[in-house]
Amino acid sequence: MAIRIFITGGTFDKEYNELNGELFFKDTHLPEMLKLGRSRVPVDIRTLMMIDSLQMTDTDRELIARHCNETEAEKIVITHGTDTMVDSAKKLAELVKGKTIVLTGAMIPYKFGSSDGLFNLGSALAFVQTLPVGVYVAMNGRWFNWDNVWKNKKTGEFEEAR
Amino acid sequence: MAIRIFITGGTFDKEYNELNGELFFKDTHLPEMLKLGRSRVPVDIRTLMMIDSLQMTDTDRELIARHCNETEAEKIVITHGTDTMVDSAKKLAELVKGKTIVLTGAMIPYKFGSSDGLFNLGSALAFVQTLPVGVYVAMNGRWFNWDNVWKNKKTGEFEEAR
Amino acid sequence: MAIRIFITGGTFDKEYNELNGELFFKDTHLPEMLKLGRSRVPVDIRTLMMIDSLQMTDTDRELIARHCNETEAEKIVITHGTDTMVDSAKKLAELVKGKTIVLTGAMIPYKFGSSDGLFNLGSALAFVQTLPVGVYVAMNGRWFNWDNVWKNKKTGEFEEAR
Amino acid sequence: MAIRIFITGGTFDKEYNELNGELFFKDTHLPEMLKLGRSRVPVDIRTLMMIDSLQMTDTDRELIARHCNETEAEKIVITHGTDTMVDSAKKLAELVKGKTIVLTGAMIPYKFGSSDGLFNLGSALAFVQTLPVGVYVAMNGRWFNWDNVWKNKKTGEFEEAR
Repeated sequence: MAIRIFITGGTFDKEYNELNGELFFKDTHLPEMLKLGRSRVPVDIRTLMMIDSLQMTDTDRELIARHCNETEAEKIVITHGTDTMVDSAKKLAELVKGKTIVLTGAMIPYKFGSSDGLFNLGSALAFVQTLPVGVYVAMNGRWFNWDNVWKNKKTGEFEEAR
Repeated sequence: MAIRIFITGGTFDKEYNELNGELFFKDTHLPEMLKLGRSRVPVDIRTLMMIDSLQMTDTDRELIARHCNETEAEKIVITHGTDTMVDSAKKLAELVKGKTIVLTGAMIPYKFGSSDGLFNLGSALAFVQTLPVGVYVAMNGRWFNWDNVWKNKKTGEFEEAR
Repeated sequence: MAIRIFITGGTFDKEYNELNGELFFKDTHLPEMLKLGRSRVPVDIRTLMMIDSLQMTDTDRELIARHCNETEAEKIVITHGTDTMVDSAKKLAELVKGKTIVLTGAMIPYKFGSSDGLFNLGSALAFVQTLPVGVYVAMNGRWFNWDNVWKNKKTGEFEEAR
Repeated sequence: MAIRIFITGGTFDKEYNELNGELFFKDTHLPEMLKLGRSRVPVDIRTLMMIDSLQMTDTDRELIARHCNETEAEKIVITHGTDTMVDSAKKLAELVKGKTIVLTGAMIPYKFGSSDGLFNLGSALAFVQTLPVGVYVAMNGRWFNWDNVWKNKKTGEFEEAR
């Protein structure tokens, strides 16, 4: 069965508005990225929202959880801003059972050339195919259980909680 | 324990010689790619050879196998040209036991901008962390057992053997 | 005699801070860009300031003018933010005589991959070598006299004043 | 009046065939490059041939000259492989009078990301707008008269003849 990919926004999908110098969201770049990676993994992509994760509310998180529960897919990748990725992972662990859910994101927008997004997407798709049921964060080439991860704001890297 | 990465060359690491218009090998781009992916996976990188996989001989494959056996690492990623990646996987399955070995490569050189290499590297590193002992090919976002994969030369994609 | 290149900042040289998602200035990318373009034009590069041109004051413009007057070079390229490039051109026309001065910039930061900066730099260097004494804006592949140009904020393009 | 751009091929427009690892020609990238440069210079683009300049014959050069003579445009840019660019410039100087013709090319294919092509195109378009009637080579940010230039095969750079 195809892997479900839910798009929620985050740095991953931000673009540069050359008229005012600000970052904004237009469309997701996931299909373009999967094509670049020559991915042949069967996926269904659906955009749930396009927001900065600092703007994400509990209502948004419940919406994501509902979509995870309603899809027939048992393996789900969620693209998400890194700032509150851990909060969403916790919420999903609480509300969704019996599925393998992997959240991933990027520190640099895909469109900026020097992005970590393609690397992260490759690893997230691999982790979701191989990890058992549970909710995980996939960043920096590693995977973390939802209850054992935090983002180090000084380095921008994800680490085990202590 | 750190993951061992063995470099053998392949399209992954090819560069364009602007003086004669030919492709050639200089140094591996793996460290640069891992930095771009902000990877925090502990790895030891070692270049065994820098060759086109069409030039790879059985002696070369035995050398790779010996290095796989001699390293203390139990998880090994091998970058490899795609044309004979499946042949090397078979040879390694025969000669190396008790380790998780993932071969990966690229259809487009990393330096050409439009490469699938970063995506493949992300997935290979994820697969080697999660798959059980065995020899695998990681391409197109998927993983294949060494005895159930071939490269479709018409599409450039890896598929299950039939 | 070498062409003088004065750096003043602008979108050209902006970078993305992955820790807070904001754009900022570090070092100029001019030497890297000239290397990419395999430029063999003799140039002396000097950074005067690294600011967004919306922040540029008349004092800043006088400083730029003084440097233009003090250098022995008769041909000068100035990289500049696009928002007030025309204002600076006017000021320089008033304060500097007997030199060929070409202002250029970019709508997208060089580091973002999809930048117009390399194209603009190529054209600015060409215009400064061939245009007579005067102050010019080089954008969109075209050159404009300082007193016959404005930036259309809706399109982000430079046009003849009417 | 619009500037005429004649495409003849060369490294500029080469692409990488990921199935056999060879370089080949498909379509010209000129329109894409002009868009990236946000060029607003009026141009008419016409592809005359798509060949490696080492394959270019005198018949090909006469064809290019005929097109230069037949177009109403007085300013012409020709994209061309670098290996025999100087030979074509000589031939055009002999066969075409009363026009400003600028030949340019690239050492690295545009599609490879690290190309000098965008820089060269920016400078060629600027030179053709400002130089008097004559035949010129525009490379390395510089312009050369057709009878005072050669390509240094060791450095890949264009220099004054001596």
